[in-house]
Amino acid sequence: MIDEISMKIRADELIRMALAEDVTGEDVSTNSVLKGPVRGEAELICKQDGVVAGLPVFARVFAILGGVEVEFCAEDGDRVHKGQRLARVRGDMRAILTGERTALNFLQRMSGIATYTANMVRLLEGSGLRLADTRKTTPNMRIFEKYAVRMGGGGNHRFNLSDAVLLKDNHIGAAGGMKAAVLAAKAHAPFTMKIEAEAETLDEVREAVEAGADIVMLDNMSDEDMKAAVALVAGRALVEISGNVTAENAARLKGIGADIVSCGALTHSAPILDVSLKNLHPVEEGAERG
Amino acid sequence: MIDEISMKIRADELIRMALAEDVTGEDVSTNSVLKGPVRGEAELICKQDGVVAGLPVFARVFAILGGVEVEFCAEDGDRVHKGQRLARVRGDMRAILTGERTALNFLQRMSGIATYTANMVRLLEGSGLRLADTRKTTPNMRIFEKYAVRMGGGGNHRFNLSDAVLLKDNHIGAAGGMKAAVLAAKAHAPFTMKIEAEAETLDEVREAVEAGADIVMLDNMSDEDMKAAVALVAGRALVEISGNVTAENAARLKGIGADIVSCGALTHSAPILDVSLKNLHPVEEGAERG
Amino acid sequence: MIDEISMKIRADELIRMALAEDVTGEDVSTNSVLKGPVRGEAELICKQDGVVAGLPVFARVFAILGGVEVEFCAEDGDRVHKGQRLARVRGDMRAILTGERTALNFLQRMSGIATYTANMVRLLEGSGLRLADTRKTTPNMRIFEKYAVRMGGGGNHRFNLSDAVLLKDNHIGAAGGMKAAVLAAKAHAPFTMKIEAEAETLDEVREAVEAGADIVMLDNMSDEDMKAAVALVAGRALVEISGNVTAENAARLKGIGADIVSCGALTHSAPILDVSLKNLHPVEEGAERG
Amino acid sequence: MIDEISMKIRADELIRMALAEDVTGEDVSTNSVLKGPVRGEAELICKQDGVVAGLPVFARVFAILGGVEVEFCAEDGDRVHKGQRLARVRGDMRAILTGERTALNFLQRMSGIATYTANMVRLLEGSGLRLADTRKTTPNMRIFEKYAVRMGGGGNHRFNLSDAVLLKDNHIGAAGGMKAAVLAAKAHAPFTMKIEAEAETLDEVREAVEAGADIVMLDNMSDEDMKAAVALVAGRALVEISGNVTAENAARLKGIGADIVSCGALTHSAPILDVSLKNLHPVEEGAERG
Amino acid sequence: MIDEISMKIRADELIRMALAEDVTGEDVSTNSVLKGPVRGEAELICKQDGVVAGLPVFARVFAILGGVEVEFCAEDGDRVHKGQRLARVRGDMRAILTGERTALNFLQRMSGIATYTANMVRLLEGSGLRLADTRKTTPNMRIFEKYAVRMGGGGNHRFNLSDAVLLKDNHIGAAGGMKAAVLAAKAHAPFTMKIEAEAETLDEVREAVEAGADIVMLDNMSDEDMKAAVALVAGRALVEISGNVTAENAARLKGIGADIVSCGALTHSAPILDVSLKNLHPVEEGAERG
Amino acid sequence: MIDEISMKIRADELIRMALAEDVTGEDVSTNSVLKGPVRGEAELICKQDGVVAGLPVFARVFAILGGVEVEFCAEDGDRVHKGQRLARVRGDMRAILTGERTALNFLQRMSGIATYTANMVRLLEGSGLRLADTRKTTPNMRIFEKYAVRMGGGGNHRFNLSDAVLLKDNHIGAAGGMKAAVLAAKAHAPFTMKIEAEAETLDEVREAVEAGADIVMLDNMSDEDMKAAVALVAGRALVEISGNVTAENAARLKGIGADIVSCGALTHSAPILDVSLKNLHPVEEGAERG
Repeated sequence: MIDEISMKIRADELIRMALAEDVTGEDVSTNSVLKGPVRGEAELICKQDGVVAGLPVFARVFAILGGVEVEFCAEDGDRVHKGQRLARVRGDMRAILTGERTALNFLQRMSGIATYTANMVRLLEGSGLRLADTRKTTPNMRIFEKYAVRMGGGGNHRFNLSDAVLLKDNHIGAAGGMKAAVLAAKAHAPFTMKIEAEAETLDEVREAVEAGADIVMLDNMSDEDMKAAVALVAGRALVEISGNVTAENAARLKGIGADIVSCGALTHSAPILDVSLKNLHPVEEGAERG
Repeated sequence: MIDEISMKIRADELIRMALAEDVTGEDVSTNSVLKGPVRGEAELICKQDGVVAGLPVFARVFAILGGVEVEFCAEDGDRVHKGQRLARVRGDMRAILTGERTALNFLQRMSGIATYTANMVRLLEGSGLRLADTRKTTPNMRIFEKYAVRMGGGGNHRFNLSDAVLLKDNHIGAAGGMKAAVLAAKAHAPFTMKIEAEAETLDEVREAVEAGADIVMLDNMSDEDMKAAVALVAGRALVEISGNVTAENAARLKGIGADIVSCGALTHSAPILDVSLKNLHPVEEGAERG
Repeated sequence: MIDEISMKIRADELIRMALAEDVTGEDVSTNSVLKGPVRGEAELICKQDGVVAGLPVFARVFAILGGVEVEFCAEDGDRVHKGQRLARVRGDMRAILTGERTALNFLQRMSGIATYTANMVRLLEGSGLRLADTRKTTPNMRIFEKYAVRMGGGGNHRFNLSDAVLLKDNHIGAAGGMKAAVLAAKAHAPFTMKIEAEAETLDEVREAVEAGADIVMLDNMSDEDMKAAVALVAGRALVEISGNVTAENAARLKGIGADIVSCGALTHSAPILDVSLKNLHPVEEGAERG
Repeated sequence: MIDEISMKIRADELIRMALAEDVTGEDVSTNSVLKGPVRGEAELICKQDGVVAGLPVFARVFAILGGVEVEFCAEDGDRVHKGQRLARVRGDMRAILTGERTALNFLQRMSGIATYTANMVRLLEGSGLRLADTRKTTPNMRIFEKYAVRMGGGGNHRFNLSDAVLLKDNHIGAAGGMKAAVLAAKAHAPFTMKIEAEAETLDEVREAVEAGADIVMLDNMSDEDMKAAVALVAGRALVEISGNVTAENAARLKGIGADIVSCGALTHSAPILDVSLKNLHPVEEGAERG
Repeated sequence: MIDEISMKIRADELIRMALAEDVTGEDVSTNSVLKGPVRGEAELICKQDGVVAGLPVFARVFAILGGVEVEFCAEDGDRVHKGQRLARVRGDMRAILTGERTALNFLQRMSGIATYTANMVRLLEGSGLRLADTRKTTPNMRIFEKYAVRMGGGGNHRFNLSDAVLLKDNHIGAAGGMKAAVLAAKAHAPFTMKIEAEAETLDEVREAVEAGADIVMLDNMSDEDMKAAVALVAGRALVEISGNVTAENAARLKGIGADIVSCGALTHSAPILDVSLKNLHPVEEGAERG
Repeated sequence: MIDEISMKIRADELIRMALAEDVTGEDVSTNSVLKGPVRGEAELICKQDGVVAGLPVFARVFAILGGVEVEFCAEDGDRVHKGQRLARVRGDMRAILTGERTALNFLQRMSGIATYTANMVRLLEGSGLRLADTRKTTPNMRIFEKYAVRMGGGGNHRFNLSDAVLLKDNHIGAAGGMKAAVLAAKAHAPFTMKIEAEAETLDEVREAVEAGADIVMLDNMSDEDMKAAVALVAGRALVEISGNVTAENAARLKGIGADIVSCGALTHSAPILDVSLKNLHPVEEGAERG
């Protein structure tokens, strides 16, 4: 579950902004027909098979609006099925109607990412190769999208430019070579931070590891070179490769012996998982289904 | 082109937040190797065929960071091809490296939506049926995503809950029927605002139009009923249907005679268009390629 | 009543800012004499006849400060009289003293607008001519002022530049004529949005309606021309005129046959309605007047 | 002139918010007809006699949008006349059209307050009685409204609850009497802060002055008592009275011998001064009127 | 106690920002080991003798995170001793662990300032010379630091540039002399605001007082001149001197006869008071120590 | 130098807030005597020996206000001496006067930290023991204070709770032991993140290293145990100890053989370095000293 404490510190502002994006004045439709609070109840229903992620965010949207309770029948990371009820939502129908789209927009996207991730993870099962995301996330959605990757069974790469060093070709060029770049990073970065370097040749791999890189990213190498690189690193650093994982390429990727495969598509190209709020109806106080 | 004036009023804050999401302290990698400004140049290259959208947002990221100019070779809405150069980016290499990911995250997503939309629009060519988006957008990205739909040749549905009335089943139920709901909306909403109603039966369609709805949305009807609804409306209101447009269903959709088909997938399930910054290299002042 | 849901999404930030404008450090006067919480009670008294608007905003100021409850004896839209009690306010006297001015500043202005609007509306009674506001509102007060107009019995024009098209002379000039302007708007604006055009001549009126404008605004025409315009439009569009409504001109305005008269003075020149907090006194817990 | 430095620190955020209130997506009308920048020119014309205030704020709206210059022919505090040109506005017509209403909303209100204030000030001319405002300002407009009072020739009372002590009946009651309240404030408030006390009787006036109050506010006293209070204070403190200044009561107010008369109506009930942007037209680069 | 009302208006935003500075994603350490809420209890222990300030801010950090209660055994302004328990903290261990550092960072600094101030105040005991702070505070910490000075027994100088006039040499030079400067301030500033002038010579002191300055600041004068200045002022204004108070110079400072000594070091150079959270351990619901 | 790019992303908001904290309305003193722009010049003079840090922040304050240029004669990290000129400041005297205190509050504090750090670093010279800071920074000042530590020659520990794992006794207890805690962190944290564990016994040190901790923090151990721990770790992890560095204990600390000594006092107890703006005077345009 996404923890309540960091949600308050980090997610609340984004949720409020999303609501304000959808309500610049009032919900004209709802306010046309509901002139005061009416208690109602609805069901959150899954319309596709997949992995759910974002239920606490879904609930937080309504908590911020107030007067609505969400009772869950599933939790983040669960495999869910078409037709399955994920939650009961009860409270002021005006808040349910106004918040519905924002709450679903978060939930559907996060569940879409979790589902897409879970499918890739399944292809890697049994190998030591771990799947990780990238910084190719939707602007202002990173906290939600990286969490969704974890709920799908993936791991996270660095969160942003400030929490780990990743030396790419331009950094290496600017420093005057791999060794100089790694040493510059060791001198500049906090000692609590890992240093990753992107290597294009086996020489660069060797240089990176010898200069003390914690992770080596193999960039655009042949399978043979990648295997040679893994052998050369010999456990002195983690080895990362990149790319999509498909039924076709899974065996090949697993054979390289790398530690991590990172994949931008997890967050930049996963379609949503269809989830929807069904059967909203007014209820008498006290007459709700247990 | 996304206009500069509303970008300043509406997009700048979101761009700044996206940069702050990616830089919570400093860009440790870049600052490890570049201790001051170094002038550089790079090319923005398209890596897939598609329709580009978001170039002004891409440039605005660097304008906010300062010290970088972007010279475009394409504009939003253009069909672009694999390998095509979209822009030259010149200036402080530190700003280019720090802003690159954020700028691309905007551009790739917006271009992905434009491309996906353009493909659907193409299937509807020659018919009067127009394609429109929905409110199923990524939280805090609506302004960018709805613009991208337009660049792909689609049209926009309402921007949010405050700028048009859309009466769904729950609103209609709360009002005590279609007629009552439409009249309530006419009484409550500004006279400058259109009223759309979602009808499930032909009776509801008739009631909606007679009560003065400007748009009728046909919800979950058979093709026959939809055709009957269009005949019944007889031009007194716009008729909207919903759903994906595919090579398989295009002919069927076009045959209904509706005015608009709205489709959530445009914004919730389009994969990105791959665009990347290539060949960044330092340049001497004045020695840049014209 | 201003609905609680959009108040949370849209008004809270403005209320917090108004409090912060009035308290840049602490309430020095109150903190000089009250070193801890003391329970008190006061009455909200109307000091002039009028129409009240903004009671939920008044209460929300204290809800944000915390520890104060407001019990209402009237509701928004009510005609109220000099000396009438509108509410009882109970709780931490420090919060009552600190929030009083901000709460009243909202309530007095909103009630002033409702009262001014109600007076104009009364002059139009029995005619089909509806009174509407404009965008001539106080910066950052639009949500409150447009709501107050509704509480006074008026209707709202568009909320802002983004939720309806209003083509003025400069837009029409830029497009190269009325027809071109309306068609450009139909092409550009969401199909869910109405298009209004400001016409200076009968020719422009005809052109606007034929091009599909939903509303025609008659700008600076003689009464005869306005009547002719109404006849020419013949129900194909709404007709809007503008100006103050006074005892002197009401009959004339009603005779034109237009649908709406819009009036900037509702929000830009209404004096406040005097309302004040009286008789604040400490109370024992439990000893409050029922 | 409102100084540019505090405008940047304090006004910019409020101006940006006002623009965002008016543009939640884009200016649909302008963007329908202007697809790129077109250089234009307009005149800012006064439509009523009065005192102008807020010209730098008017200009700042366009500076924030960018691409528009404002050349003034008058300055804040000037008496202006119907038909007088106050400024020429030149630049991107899109920015002029989009910013016009927000810029005028500030200018008209501020000029309305300056005009209303100047009229009251004129009635007090020749006496030593100074006119001052109150905290009865529009929420989030205080910085603009208090400045407008100064431009009309009035003076400012305290800006907010944090920059001066004003002990009212409830504070005095809570402290257990006037003397105790003033002493409590002297102990609690910074020594750099003045202490004002509201007195209802001559005894309270004496007590306040003897305890060291810097200003005494006479609350709801007869003219005779106010004169006696002034004599009793004898220059040891400033004496403030409150109320509107009219042709009828000016002589009476001037006869009391007080130092300041404060008046809430300056900011809560002044109608706007009508100012408008006229004759916007496209211009060729370089072909502008000198 | 810092009052709860101004804390909500002014401190909450700064506390939230401080939490967001420390949690840019999640508390990785805590979330690694605690997958859900676990109830715990800890003690807030003083590790040095001093004066405590900031306990309500400490508690507010946890109130904002939610699920944690703080029960105090001391209050702001108390002299506290090494080993003394200041509070018991109970609730969700995740919130306690995540909020601990932010809460302590506030409390330690504020207590450090209170302690440093109290030590200086003690040296001035028995004299009429009061100790005051300056604007030399940490950016965005002024509200907390000036409150801490009061808790240490000191007084506050002006809060900022907007709530009192302080004419320094450059202001006096710009006005063309002391008299002109004081008169300019009397004309410009609200009548509710005190005017302080910094005088470098006895002539300037005389000029300032005669022009109506409320406070005279003696700048860089010899002891003899300061004594002469005090005699010259003769109670017509407050007299302020500046500088640290030490065991060595206290007698000398007290001998001058000034009213206030202001000292920047109170807020710019006080080391923290060491306070820490000890003995955090899980507890059973209901099994807590009374 | 603090890089301009992350300053724009991260520091600007904090600088603006600091200015707004000091100017809640206007700079009353300056606006009393300067009614328009007057060009002036001043010198930034060091009044104590030390290490300077924060010059770009000092300049950025004036860049945000506008109209002021700062020409530096020193750069961050330089050892500076009493009486040394650090910069010339030229431009609108109003902006110089209004921004002075805020600019100096940043610069003095940052230089104080750099100076204090440099003194500790000097005591460790020649040993391999590196000095690092902690999270004991002033709320909302971390970005400035951690940068100042680097300018003084120190290194940075983790920036916040989200960019490295630090398992303390409570985390270890919650996990059920050191090994479980380290493994939980390896499972939960991104693979790009280092894991540090705080060990109280040699057994815990061994367990931590064997479970794969990257850094071991020795908590409250005797010198003998710390030396034994270093031997036991044998280069498989970094070893961190904590505490102040003084002339007395430096030799002892250096003898332990640890890699890092972290010290909270760098940021929580360093007094400021006194720097001030001197000799501000008006200048003719063009007549400035080269």
